[in-house]
Amino acid sequence: MAVNLQPPRAGDLRPVRGLTIGVAEAGIRKAARKDLTVMLLEPGASVGGVFTRNRFCAAPVQVCREHLASPDIRALVINTGNANAGTGDEGLVRARATCIALARHLEVAPEQVLPFSTGVIMEPLPLDRIEAGLPAAIGDARPDHWLRAAEGIMTTDTVPKAFSTSVRIGGEEVAITGISKGAGMIRPNMATMLGFLATDACVAQPLMQQLAFELAEASFNRATVDGDTSTNDSFVVIATNRARHAPITSLDSEEGRALKAALLDVARRLAQAIVRDGEGATKFITVRVEGGRSGAECRQVAYAIAHSPLVKTAFFASDPNLGRILAAVGYAGIDDLDQGTIDLWLDDVHVAVRGGRNPAYREEDGQRVMKQQEITVRVGLGRGAAADTVWTCDFSHEYVSINADYRS
Amino acid sequence: MAVNLQPPRAGDLRPVRGLTIGVAEAGIRKAARKDLTVMLLEPGASVGGVFTRNRFCAAPVQVCREHLASPDIRALVINTGNANAGTGDEGLVRARATCIALARHLEVAPEQVLPFSTGVIMEPLPLDRIEAGLPAAIGDARPDHWLRAAEGIMTTDTVPKAFSTSVRIGGEEVAITGISKGAGMIRPNMATMLGFLATDACVAQPLMQQLAFELAEASFNRATVDGDTSTNDSFVVIATNRARHAPITSLDSEEGRALKAALLDVARRLAQAIVRDGEGATKFITVRVEGGRSGAECRQVAYAIAHSPLVKTAFFASDPNLGRILAAVGYAGIDDLDQGTIDLWLDDVHVAVRGGRNPAYREEDGQRVMKQQEITVRVGLGRGAAADTVWTCDFSHEYVSINADYRS
Repeated sequence: MAVNLQPPRAGDLRPVRGLTIGVAEAGIRKAARKDLTVMLLEPGASVGGVFTRNRFCAAPVQVCREHLASPDIRALVINTGNANAGTGDEGLVRARATCIALARHLEVAPEQVLPFSTGVIMEPLPLDRIEAGLPAAIGDARPDHWLRAAEGIMTTDTVPKAFSTSVRIGGEEVAITGISKGAGMIRPNMATMLGFLATDACVAQPLMQQLAFELAEASFNRATVDGDTSTNDSFVVIATNRARHAPITSLDSEEGRALKAALLDVARRLAQAIVRDGEGATKFITVRVEGGRSGAECRQVAYAIAHSPLVKTAFFASDPNLGRILAAVGYAGIDDLDQGTIDLWLDDVHVAVRGGRNPAYREEDGQRVMKQQEITVRVGLGRGAAADTVWTCDFSHEYVSINADYRS
Repeated sequence: MAVNLQPPRAGDLRPVRGLTIGVAEAGIRKAARKDLTVMLLEPGASVGGVFTRNRFCAAPVQVCREHLASPDIRALVINTGNANAGTGDEGLVRARATCIALARHLEVAPEQVLPFSTGVIMEPLPLDRIEAGLPAAIGDARPDHWLRAAEGIMTTDTVPKAFSTSVRIGGEEVAITGISKGAGMIRPNMATMLGFLATDACVAQPLMQQLAFELAEASFNRATVDGDTSTNDSFVVIATNRARHAPITSLDSEEGRALKAALLDVARRLAQAIVRDGEGATKFITVRVEGGRSGAECRQVAYAIAHSPLVKTAFFASDPNLGRILAAVGYAGIDDLDQGTIDLWLDDVHVAVRGGRNPAYREEDGQRVMKQQEITVRVGLGRGAAADTVWTCDFSHEYVSINADYRS
């Protein structure tokens, strides 16, 4: 079902020096499924993370926020099958216990472990199974296990998501590799369901939060499947500092910009992969809004379009029912919007001019674009110079099937 | 498909003195379909109306807003099959031309006619067919044609929507009858797709806008099917002033309160009928949020739940996947929400206590409620005394089918 998204090949994913990955089958919800992943860091890594803004955030998100204040993160532990969200104080106890268990094996402090969970909400986390599975996960740890990790964090994903690149920093080639998961309950607000991005470049720890924030803003925070912001969104950026170049101490330095651009390239591909693998997706849709007074205003309109069930079902049907897009622009909440300045394009086809149908528009041109697997909707608001872009997918029968059957 | 909604019987719908209705088949989009309705008012009626807040509002909505400033509305003309929205200046010309044509037949001024359109967006209104159909519609006009009118304004509705009641005002029994239509693109913001409510009670014209606003706020503005606010929402309240009691000059008077309560009863049933007949609906869901700091905050949370595709598909599946409701509460946008004070009920089943699963909650209890056709979701925010309620329906395969096939 995924739209133009191939599974990664293990050989294409660069190992990141100073980081190993192990995966185990812990039977958390179902047997014979990779559902427990550890990422082990050598001492001295820099780590930043951003998390869901959902006020009903999961227990592991709360623990991550606390532990990220620690100086030397040494491990991440990720389980699928259970989100440990809506689980109250007992959920917090179990998230902390997961960290304690892994820390004991690694002989580090529990605060040096970051926990992540994804899966069903409001069910107790099966701590015993996680504890029992940790030795196998640790024993499995190797630098070239990125593909296994991408598989180990999947839930309703149909394709594992991992991308890799490299960039020269201070004369040295450094690796960048990342993984993500997520297909439904996707409208990241700070980060995606789960995303992990690592480089062996050297980055000063104080930069990491800013780096994670800026990367998330320009990648995961522009993706939406169904408008449902998850309780568990987490995005973590790791610099293992194993390269020999001088540490980057400013994102505005030449090296800082080069590294950030390379990281963003991978982060964007990871975020778009989530949309391409969106539950039931048959099309990948880029919604670009231009001519707004601010980026926020452009995003507001773009999300109204991207979340409209009527627009999404029209894309599924390849039906150029473009009035539905105009209606979404109109209800996006911009109180002083003048419909008389609005233009609409589907790829290169100019559909609406100043709020009305373009006299030159022919239905067969709209139809041609709507039949594509990749479509750009472009809206001109005609009231300013700001622009922004959001990625989404269509809304199919399969989305209903997946979400009506998910737990059964 | 409609949830506990029977078609009205013509004999149950009270005529409203001073008002006649005629319906014709004008072939606006499809042949052999009632698609043109006129409501003719004797002189001296009081009329108020509220309209969509969608900035991309349809041409007839703009014309209605202008004409409502006229002192003596004499007719309403309603077509289906074409929304006359996203049609630019030419759309305005055609909406005005419709009024001119009907006004000529009735020998009144065009400003005394209110036009309404519903159907496909961004297609030119076939003015010639409307003009050609008007004589038949006018010739059909009778006081007891309310059911015909309810049928004449249907689009994707599966059941005509009409309700009637009576109330004693100043010692005299007055009639109240209303009709509405709408099944998709339903998230009224001021009013529903189309709603018309008439009484032969006597109400001073200056009260009518306030009355229309207050009725819409407590009825149509609490209904949502898919979160898509239409370009054409219109709700009109008519008092034909044919009763003999002294005119109502205050909504706070004893008579004013009695009339408003009776009008609201019919308006609520009309609004709920739209949700019951929501596209693909198999369940009618009442979302009540209590314990908020303001009504607006409660509505914000209620709409987040009512619009979540994940919540709506879980209802379709009768799956008590209640974490999805908590997630929606969490992303509703209340920045200082504390998950530790949140409670959740499904009808009488207490599901979540202070943000976590109720230890006494049993899955089979949730399952029992989820299988019902009528379900109340009740959320306690635990931070204030305000409450509000929203009505919605589930999200089924049928919704996707209807909206993927609507134009073809």
